[in-house]
Amino acid sequence: MTEIPASHRDLLDAQFATLATIGPDGRPQVSEIWFLAEGDTVRLSLNSSRQKTKNLTARPQVTLFILDLESPFRYLELRADAEVARDDDYAFADKIGAKYGGADLRTHDRPGEHRVIVTLRPVGVNAVNMLG
Amino acid sequence: MTEIPASHRDLLDAQFATLATIGPDGRPQVSEIWFLAEGDTVRLSLNSSRQKTKNLTARPQVTLFILDLESPFRYLELRADAEVARDDDYAFADKIGAKYGGADLRTHDRPGEHRVIVTLRPVGVNAVNMLG
Repeated sequence: MTEIPASHRDLLDAQFATLATIGPDGRPQVSEIWFLAEGDTVRLSLNSSRQKTKNLTARPQVTLFILDLESPFRYLELRADAEVARDDDYAFADKIGAKYGGADLRTHDRPGEHRVIVTLRPVGVNAVNMLG
Repeated sequence: MTEIPASHRDLLDAQFATLATIGPDGRPQVSEIWFLAEGDTVRLSLNSSRQKTKNLTARPQVTLFILDLESPFRYLELRADAEVARDDDYAFADKIGAKYGGADLRTHDRPGEHRVIVTLRPVGVNAVNMLG
């Protein structure tokens, strides 16, 4: 299934998610990231020079994990294929920045780097509640 | 580096960690787990029938991610090789159960399944504080 059940939809409004990509050594790389959900589509704003961006460009099979920080028995695991597009005018970066108190993502980028929009196309959803 | 810096050692006492393995489809599988750290050695107690156990038996390259739930800007990413050993007498299961209020892991296993000890041998440590 690729639909997010009602029981876990609130997690799409969470502030943090954990992104797992696969590195060049074949090992999962895991980091905490910002994200923006619009309906069932989850998008990220990443800098082109980061290892996770290189990983998901080379191997689009990623997993996004959203944990309920107040009840870490409940989480959403979104298995997805990542699509990468340039965000040269920072239009999406500003949209995601608005979720985070108007953060300006330009300040995270250095000359020669660029910002990309990562769209996660779900291939599987695992909604877990270990207490349920 | 494979040493856990003083700034993040408290996370070894956390209640929850996130384990990323690689599934048969080559995609990261991510789930929330219990763990026990003794010194710098982190061990898990898993049931043989779980997908994550099958994954890390087939591909020992895993990543354990420990997030500070109260300040999710801070986390520890432990890249490790997983070693699997049987725990038929539940000796380690009882040790980890003691961390979790005396939980009896026997109740998670059905006939025909067995319990294993997963020892994580660190190959890399990434201690992050996005606010630091």
